[in-house]
Amino acid sequence: MKKTIKIPKKKFKIYNPKLKEECGVFGVSNNKDSAALTALGLHALQHRGQEGCGIVTFDGKKYYSEKRFGLVGDNFNKEKVLNSLPGDYAIGHNRYSTTGENTLRNIQPFFADTNAGGIGVAHNGNLTNSITLRNRLVQDGAIFHTTSDTETIVQLIAKSKRNKTIDKVIDAIFQIQGGYALVMLTQNTLIGVRDPHGIRPLVIGKIKDSYVFASETCALDIIGAKYIRDVENGEVVYIENNELKSIKPFPARKVRPCVFEYIYFARPDSLLNGKSAYEHRKQFGIELAKENKIKADIVVPVPDSGNAAALGFAQHLGINFELGLIRNHYVGRTFIEPSQKIRSLGVKLKLNANQSTIKDKIIILIDDSLVRGTTSHKIVKMLYDAGAKEVHVKIACPEIRFPDFYGVDTPTKKELLAANKTNDEICEYIGAKSLDFLSLEGVYRAMGFNKRDNNYPQLTDHYFTGEYPVKPIDELGDDKITQLSLLSTASNN
Amino acid sequence: MKKTIKIPKKKFKIYNPKLKEECGVFGVSNNKDSAALTALGLHALQHRGQEGCGIVTFDGKKYYSEKRFGLVGDNFNKEKVLNSLPGDYAIGHNRYSTTGENTLRNIQPFFADTNAGGIGVAHNGNLTNSITLRNRLVQDGAIFHTTSDTETIVQLIAKSKRNKTIDKVIDAIFQIQGGYALVMLTQNTLIGVRDPHGIRPLVIGKIKDSYVFASETCALDIIGAKYIRDVENGEVVYIENNELKSIKPFPARKVRPCVFEYIYFARPDSLLNGKSAYEHRKQFGIELAKENKIKADIVVPVPDSGNAAALGFAQHLGINFELGLIRNHYVGRTFIEPSQKIRSLGVKLKLNANQSTIKDKIIILIDDSLVRGTTSHKIVKMLYDAGAKEVHVKIACPEIRFPDFYGVDTPTKKELLAANKTNDEICEYIGAKSLDFLSLEGVYRAMGFNKRDNNYPQLTDHYFTGEYPVKPIDELGDDKITQLSLLSTASNN
Amino acid sequence: MKKTIKIPKKKFKIYNPKLKEECGVFGVSNNKDSAALTALGLHALQHRGQEGCGIVTFDGKKYYSEKRFGLVGDNFNKEKVLNSLPGDYAIGHNRYSTTGENTLRNIQPFFADTNAGGIGVAHNGNLTNSITLRNRLVQDGAIFHTTSDTETIVQLIAKSKRNKTIDKVIDAIFQIQGGYALVMLTQNTLIGVRDPHGIRPLVIGKIKDSYVFASETCALDIIGAKYIRDVENGEVVYIENNELKSIKPFPARKVRPCVFEYIYFARPDSLLNGKSAYEHRKQFGIELAKENKIKADIVVPVPDSGNAAALGFAQHLGINFELGLIRNHYVGRTFIEPSQKIRSLGVKLKLNANQSTIKDKIIILIDDSLVRGTTSHKIVKMLYDAGAKEVHVKIACPEIRFPDFYGVDTPTKKELLAANKTNDEICEYIGAKSLDFLSLEGVYRAMGFNKRDNNYPQLTDHYFTGEYPVKPIDELGDDKITQLSLLSTASNN
Amino acid sequence: MKKTIKIPKKKFKIYNPKLKEECGVFGVSNNKDSAALTALGLHALQHRGQEGCGIVTFDGKKYYSEKRFGLVGDNFNKEKVLNSLPGDYAIGHNRYSTTGENTLRNIQPFFADTNAGGIGVAHNGNLTNSITLRNRLVQDGAIFHTTSDTETIVQLIAKSKRNKTIDKVIDAIFQIQGGYALVMLTQNTLIGVRDPHGIRPLVIGKIKDSYVFASETCALDIIGAKYIRDVENGEVVYIENNELKSIKPFPARKVRPCVFEYIYFARPDSLLNGKSAYEHRKQFGIELAKENKIKADIVVPVPDSGNAAALGFAQHLGINFELGLIRNHYVGRTFIEPSQKIRSLGVKLKLNANQSTIKDKIIILIDDSLVRGTTSHKIVKMLYDAGAKEVHVKIACPEIRFPDFYGVDTPTKKELLAANKTNDEICEYIGAKSLDFLSLEGVYRAMGFNKRDNNYPQLTDHYFTGEYPVKPIDELGDDKITQLSLLSTASNN
Repeated sequence: MKKTIKIPKKKFKIYNPKLKEECGVFGVSNNKDSAALTALGLHALQHRGQEGCGIVTFDGKKYYSEKRFGLVGDNFNKEKVLNSLPGDYAIGHNRYSTTGENTLRNIQPFFADTNAGGIGVAHNGNLTNSITLRNRLVQDGAIFHTTSDTETIVQLIAKSKRNKTIDKVIDAIFQIQGGYALVMLTQNTLIGVRDPHGIRPLVIGKIKDSYVFASETCALDIIGAKYIRDVENGEVVYIENNELKSIKPFPARKVRPCVFEYIYFARPDSLLNGKSAYEHRKQFGIELAKENKIKADIVVPVPDSGNAAALGFAQHLGINFELGLIRNHYVGRTFIEPSQKIRSLGVKLKLNANQSTIKDKIIILIDDSLVRGTTSHKIVKMLYDAGAKEVHVKIACPEIRFPDFYGVDTPTKKELLAANKTNDEICEYIGAKSLDFLSLEGVYRAMGFNKRDNNYPQLTDHYFTGEYPVKPIDELGDDKITQLSLLSTASNN
Repeated sequence: MKKTIKIPKKKFKIYNPKLKEECGVFGVSNNKDSAALTALGLHALQHRGQEGCGIVTFDGKKYYSEKRFGLVGDNFNKEKVLNSLPGDYAIGHNRYSTTGENTLRNIQPFFADTNAGGIGVAHNGNLTNSITLRNRLVQDGAIFHTTSDTETIVQLIAKSKRNKTIDKVIDAIFQIQGGYALVMLTQNTLIGVRDPHGIRPLVIGKIKDSYVFASETCALDIIGAKYIRDVENGEVVYIENNELKSIKPFPARKVRPCVFEYIYFARPDSLLNGKSAYEHRKQFGIELAKENKIKADIVVPVPDSGNAAALGFAQHLGINFELGLIRNHYVGRTFIEPSQKIRSLGVKLKLNANQSTIKDKIIILIDDSLVRGTTSHKIVKMLYDAGAKEVHVKIACPEIRFPDFYGVDTPTKKELLAANKTNDEICEYIGAKSLDFLSLEGVYRAMGFNKRDNNYPQLTDHYFTGEYPVKPIDELGDDKITQLSLLSTASNN
Repeated sequence: MKKTIKIPKKKFKIYNPKLKEECGVFGVSNNKDSAALTALGLHALQHRGQEGCGIVTFDGKKYYSEKRFGLVGDNFNKEKVLNSLPGDYAIGHNRYSTTGENTLRNIQPFFADTNAGGIGVAHNGNLTNSITLRNRLVQDGAIFHTTSDTETIVQLIAKSKRNKTIDKVIDAIFQIQGGYALVMLTQNTLIGVRDPHGIRPLVIGKIKDSYVFASETCALDIIGAKYIRDVENGEVVYIENNELKSIKPFPARKVRPCVFEYIYFARPDSLLNGKSAYEHRKQFGIELAKENKIKADIVVPVPDSGNAAALGFAQHLGINFELGLIRNHYVGRTFIEPSQKIRSLGVKLKLNANQSTIKDKIIILIDDSLVRGTTSHKIVKMLYDAGAKEVHVKIACPEIRFPDFYGVDTPTKKELLAANKTNDEICEYIGAKSLDFLSLEGVYRAMGFNKRDNNYPQLTDHYFTGEYPVKPIDELGDDKITQLSLLSTASNN
Repeated sequence: MKKTIKIPKKKFKIYNPKLKEECGVFGVSNNKDSAALTALGLHALQHRGQEGCGIVTFDGKKYYSEKRFGLVGDNFNKEKVLNSLPGDYAIGHNRYSTTGENTLRNIQPFFADTNAGGIGVAHNGNLTNSITLRNRLVQDGAIFHTTSDTETIVQLIAKSKRNKTIDKVIDAIFQIQGGYALVMLTQNTLIGVRDPHGIRPLVIGKIKDSYVFASETCALDIIGAKYIRDVENGEVVYIENNELKSIKPFPARKVRPCVFEYIYFARPDSLLNGKSAYEHRKQFGIELAKENKIKADIVVPVPDSGNAAALGFAQHLGINFELGLIRNHYVGRTFIEPSQKIRSLGVKLKLNANQSTIKDKIIILIDDSLVRGTTSHKIVKMLYDAGAKEVHVKIACPEIRFPDFYGVDTPTKKELLAANKTNDEICEYIGAKSLDFLSLEGVYRAMGFNKRDNNYPQLTDHYFTGEYPVKPIDELGDDKITQLSLLSTASNN
């Protein structure tokens, strides 16, 4: 006998309720429009974090900083703000919070004055040993002002006894563990760092004489910069006197990028390993079609996350791709936290079924992934309510069974549907006629590998396999942060 | 020798820079959640106007009103606001301004106390004789507080010597000319009116015991209301004692809805004449494909306006439909008015080419319409810059050569590209390899008519033909409004 | 046996909880800085109304309007706002609401387009027949947008069949009754009107070539304008082609200004009948001393309302004047509506006893008037708590026994302490050792009259006598306004 | 021949343009209304700093913090804010900035997590060796987040190797120099510290079972707390288990309070050395009268700073005290930064001459001090413009010739009028008929000392004498802070 699955209530999230990566980072050197370019780069990376954004610039003498809650386009689009950020060097950050409270203090980039000069730090990722490091630093008299693990990195840099800032940085990254991409600014030097496994992404671009670091290539496109190459795993790159320099302080290792950049995080037009995320996702859809030949009237994507995979699926099987679900374009930031009254009306604020297209059809509903299943449950019901004959759900990635510790905001294992239920149970829960996931081997095939190298996997794929490239910490309750979390600010200062 | 075409500079508009209809209207009777339902209905109709929104309710004794700039979801999502609008009867309005300045005073519904009691009025459309009427009313001592033509209707109602409000309304609509859909609230009576030609849309729905009036069916769907029927052209409907009553004060005439509801205004999932706008648009794409058989590698829509037509076009010719242009989901209200600095960088804030998909391809680019050509010009260039081999532009409606006077914010004739240039000139201007429009007959065929009935056209199609169902006024300069426009408020009161 | 007196709970008011006059008005002609001068004039008149303020200007072609909640200095101090009010002619208004709700719509000046052109109206006072007039206008089709009686005046002007605006104005004032001072702006003409009894004040000033109208002379002083003369009772003055013209449409009558301008409303430095209000109030204190010879250690004013009378009292008897009560300077707009928690602590947010000065002293406490007695009650207690030996309260005006209907916000008769209690009862209620009021004859003597002319009183003094110069209406409940009050706006639009 | 004195342009300050002390501090223990009481205490101390205010509370487990720009009454009057600050222990701070930029980060109390637990710190005063200490701490890896010298104290506490927090505090105060009063909160312990000379004030009060620390007694009065005693110079007091404990870590020394608390800073009703500041100031006025016998018609105070001294002066000589200058009560925060347009009109936003009282009179104008002379210059002119016959200026303290380094925001020596000009030159500059200052001996006599003890002065009186109790640092340019000042935030985060 099956038990009822309790669906955890979550506050509505702005963009997508499934998985979230922590952040987007950006930096530009040697350009008189550095702040405006950074604002644009962050705007293109907005999907990586909508909670807050910040920019730090350096004008040869002083650093300037501006941090805001909310979207880049709402906060950094005015002449006045951009003019308050002078200088030829800038770094920026979009925040999606995985650790720490939501206060202005936690918005990055962070800044510190060290005895070698100022340094600004923007960080995408998560450290697995930050609490140990933090406690050690506090014992030694350090005062933390945020609950973000990025401040641990900054404190380590400030504490380093090395003389040059670049050496202080290397000193610090030797002590941290996890998945991270860092963009830093110190005097006239822009620094980029990617963790030894290359879990989190970082690319290098160039616009005229200016080098650019960014989380994704779409941030290069928006400003018309040319993609040069990825920062390699474990590489420290820096721009000094307008030259790109590289240090590889860690032992050589194969790169192992996070599979979810391909499946979900990266914007469709961003290049990953030479091909757009869109093409990768179409390929996931094609592999999914190969594994699940099925007859149906139409293929319908969950908009917009399932679009590319659904197109691949539909094209491969020659079934019509139809926009069977219509998004309300204004849902972005509206009704984010609908009142109880409105919620109780049980309405569909974001999506509506395209009735004339759905009615009496056998439908294949495609999405890129399935985490908690609550959205799928609602959408399947919406399709049946609109008159669908059958709804078959196909997911363009494997079952997610293990949480992440490198910067991706996954639910705890308890909340991961596939970690606790059989395929049949999930199918029943979401109310579909059938449910299929892409196989792990399908993922690797779609990406052009013959197969997964089980000795040294080509991807960070612990979501599906439980194989973590860096020893994970236990899941943290808030009580593990013994220090600053004591201070809770009512408003946002 | 061709002259350079000067592109008029326009302020960035929030949603779509092409054509805009004035407004969305909504009303609900006999429901304890009337304000919340109206907020949801307006949210679903948000695409019809984003400048401002308002709700008026009646609780059996008093009227309550709340008007705001901006989106419904930002303004009517809080318990507190909804609680300030008690009562079982409510009407609401989304404003897109075609006439009048952008001030809070101009946001609807309007309200007046007449000697027969209060009346709230929400109006979608445009009057063609409002200035004549206004001047006559002012001569007679009326004080206008807005520059909206809706106030003319309200003043006519207040002035009427008839005793019952419903008769005052009929008195008023006999005097006005143009295209209009009205939703009104007076004591416990909800009133809906559609102009004699049925130019502007209005539908009737029902949720439990409550009748609903709305501009489109998507506003019924969001609250789970059932679609009953359209208000007929020239019909006055009203809900009294929970019963739907109908008066037809005008001589009978065939309905002649605005063709642009089908082409562009209506949300894809709204039903028009029994079929969703999405299906109509796919059909426009299919007719376009029939008229323009062409070989190409991929069909790319201008997102999202060209999606449905592009799918129809691609399915009919068996060419792959691809998302070759990626929208930034956060562009909605961000960078609405980018600073000069950012503008000068010439960046692509809204769209990016999906390079890996575009490169070396022969592309058919589909959009629903072409007005000024500025957006098409940019998009074609973006595709070529991304490596497209050829870009052929196909427009799923005929050339727009004539402005509108019934509530659609078209540019003046001078700004309408097709009113001034040959197809070749336009093609050269937008930089495409070829350019084709759907024929007028194609429009009628797509909608299931054998052909256009030239004696009594089935649609309001003056955009293409210059045949206006109601005698148009001359294009108004602001100086034509001789009265209230004198008063200009610096802020919004 | 005495009954306990119930003290009605009132929301904290910003400035002084006792009596309030409705408004301050100001106008300036023929001056390129008209808006800035008006802002300054209103700032000087801020004590007459703090709820909202507005300015209307005319630049030869168009009218400009700006209305705000709150203080002039917070709203009209920025270049940007002043620049949005171009033109050489301006009128302005400070609002203290006696009738109508507190919404932006009710803030003056009001504006109307009539068939003779635009007109802006700022009004200080109250009409006694506004509801009758309003109902008649609504019967005739007029739409009211506010609940203010000033709109009645504006509607009457718009309705007038006379051709010239000045004649329309005279047409309108023939129909209204009450106490009023009006400043109006129509095209290049500035108009000032004072009611037939001259109940409400209005003065004429000049700065270089520009004429100025204002409620008090302090508004002339702040801009360096010279005082010319008072507008006479029943006089219509207007500035046309830079010349001051006068019409006296009403039968001649003696002026009869409101005694409370002398006692309380006017700023101490404003001239009333050739002498500053400060000097008048010192004189009230001297007469009070003559009527109440008493031995005491110190004379203490209730700050700042009792300052001038206390100085007169102390100087006349040769007793030391001491600041025995210290005001918190920051109380102005702070803790205006203290939270329940803070209120429950029973604290003294505005005043503190100056203990070292008070202790063991026999004190004469002076205030300008006594209305509800709640403040006096608290202050007397505060002095005894600080160690005062005896507290004798002397009030520099007679007992207030009758409410006002000409623009002064008095409590209803039920709330007027002196209308319901004997002197002994009041004394006991406020907890003083003794209590004395200035006699009515004392008031007249202090102002230089031999005695009150009981046939034709020299002042509007019904507060003390019940003799109303204009037939008062019954006290209005809100339900008497049968029309627009039906519409209640949740927010302020 | 005399040179024109250039008056430095200064931004309008909110309260008083002359001298400013840094801050007000407050703390309360063991009271369930701790946050509300602290808000009230800070409200009473508002005159000591209006730039920002903050409160930190402790509820037995966590610390809560809330910091705001502006006035206490505007920010801490709402239930919601007070409820966000739970706990029985609270400290608070009003900021007037003498060092550091005006950003939210610089508003106190500051907070740090040390290895002995959290600590909140509120500080009134100035350190003379903070930069040296700061540079040393940064060398050692400390990251400063503010430019306030208070953070130096916090960093020293965090750095201390002692185990108990109270010992860490003593460790820290041994290293700092200057004038300071500290109120700190750590777990259930409230700590108060006063510098070895007792330059800055701190008093102890009690309300029921709760101990209170505050800068002045007026903060005890507002909450009804009883004054217990002053914290002694060099004393560390703390409340533990509801008991008041005391440590005196420094060698014994005589107390030497800042003379300007008596002359100007303290609120008139605050007790200093057993007598109210008002009485002290009346005494300064009496001594001034003794030293400057003069015949005149009236004595006029500069309101409100000169009120008490003017009363003493007038009573001693038997001349009438008159309010010859009328303050606009609404000037507080209005027109704080008047637009250029308004400034250029040369108006009197704050004061107006009371003409009828001034005209043709010989006037003695009294103020408590004279710093730059710009205000006196304007006021004297205002009186003459209003028709004064003669204006004699008497200042109730000696000439200020030396700047302060212990928390008082004096101008640099260059700007101190009396440091650069003779009495005659100053008199000519301010335009008075005569000018006199109270002698230094007069100050000491007024306070009950026979004479100044030149070996060990009873007061910190370097303003007049140049004798500094603690070795002053050189006047700091901003460039002296070599570290965090590098980071400049455009907005306030």
